[in-house]
Amino acid sequence: MTFTSSPASSAADSALQAEVQQFYAWQMHLLDSGEADAWAETFTEDGVFAANAHPEPARGRETIRTAAAKAAAQRAEEGVQVRHWLGMLDVRPQEDGSVVALSYALIVNTPLGGSPQVHLSTTCRDVLVRGEAGGWLVSDRQVKRDDLA
Amino acid sequence: MTFTSSPASSAADSALQAEVQQFYAWQMHLLDSGEADAWAETFTEDGVFAANAHPEPARGRETIRTAAAKAAAQRAEEGVQVRHWLGMLDVRPQEDGSVVALSYALIVNTPLGGSPQVHLSTTCRDVLVRGEAGGWLVSDRQVKRDDLA
Amino acid sequence: MTFTSSPASSAADSALQAEVQQFYAWQMHLLDSGEADAWAETFTEDGVFAANAHPEPARGRETIRTAAAKAAAQRAEEGVQVRHWLGMLDVRPQEDGSVVALSYALIVNTPLGGSPQVHLSTTCRDVLVRGEAGGWLVSDRQVKRDDLA
Repeated sequence: MTFTSSPASSAADSALQAEVQQFYAWQMHLLDSGEADAWAETFTEDGVFAANAHPEPARGRETIRTAAAKAAAQRAEEGVQVRHWLGMLDVRPQEDGSVVALSYALIVNTPLGGSPQVHLSTTCRDVLVRGEAGGWLVSDRQVKRDDLA
Repeated sequence: MTFTSSPASSAADSALQAEVQQFYAWQMHLLDSGEADAWAETFTEDGVFAANAHPEPARGRETIRTAAAKAAAQRAEEGVQVRHWLGMLDVRPQEDGSVVALSYALIVNTPLGGSPQVHLSTTCRDVLVRGEAGGWLVSDRQVKRDDLA
Repeated sequence: MTFTSSPASSAADSALQAEVQQFYAWQMHLLDSGEADAWAETFTEDGVFAANAHPEPARGRETIRTAAAKAAAQRAEEGVQVRHWLGMLDVRPQEDGSVVALSYALIVNTPLGGSPQVHLSTTCRDVLVRGEAGGWLVSDRQVKRDDLA
């Protein structure tokens, strides 16, 4: 990430900061609850999920849904509760109405009967767009694990 | 937790998101500072604190106060500083004026001279109501540890 | 920290809560990206950075810049990505227009090819003032590590 402009400070920007946090809370709750269908609906139909841990981005809502359902099934089998913590959110409204959202994310895993482990530390760069219902959708997500070069 | 509706997005909802975060910061600072009296005042007189780690909920402000004071004394004796991190907050205004607040919480313990440990990962479901002074009070709290079935 | 007043609850306070969060996200991204020059610009010219881990506070933007640049170089050499998570933010507007911001901070270190470690747990007490461009600047920061007496 590079950062060149000063932080947003208008009332509209403050409202946006809070609104995007609300969106992420809801989205991560869906993911960690294994609700792969509802999770996939938080991406645009042609949404892209790229990660430096994966050779190729996941492209399109159906691919994202399938990947989430598979991961949820695996975690359930392993008896691990995953929590995605997203924070240190920097929201940047764009001229076309979209928002670039830069954040940190921690993945905290808790095995049944065990202690929580901070599994991964990452950054997340999202492009968010308004969906038809008025809420935000992710059109592009880029996740970078801090442990990978 | 189950999640069926889309995230809040009005200006009022954005203000509520920020306001409830402010409340939680204040409340958790009280708890982690061992201020059991002030902590108890953030619950309604008949407030309930239930946890899947406890066989019975704590019922009423006095019970909550006593439990907090006892826990604070124990931590002081052990030389452990506890920090409650609450995040990924999803606020849901209800028709009766109350708010259902769904969140994650991490408990981070730091022993004197030692390294911080992520002690517990939990979810928290609160019902918040307006107190006489205009601030929020917890009328019902349900904490679920991720390591327990 | 001591806490005696009730949490903020006006619309202005909610906007401030969100605005300060936006500021901190931006500021911590700068720090963790090793952008020492831009980081130093988020403090006032005579800004003070005090920590219970240091015998003397860093005084002035140039001292803060030099310390940040040195720390960034060291982390790069060690191959460690540091993430500063600031949360549980309690913002308190002061009569002179400044803001006292009380928060928790976690420092999460991830070595290249390794697992993230919660390195430190701290509290942070900032005095924030408006800069000429309208954004916030830190005029006084006091960081206390939880592992130190």
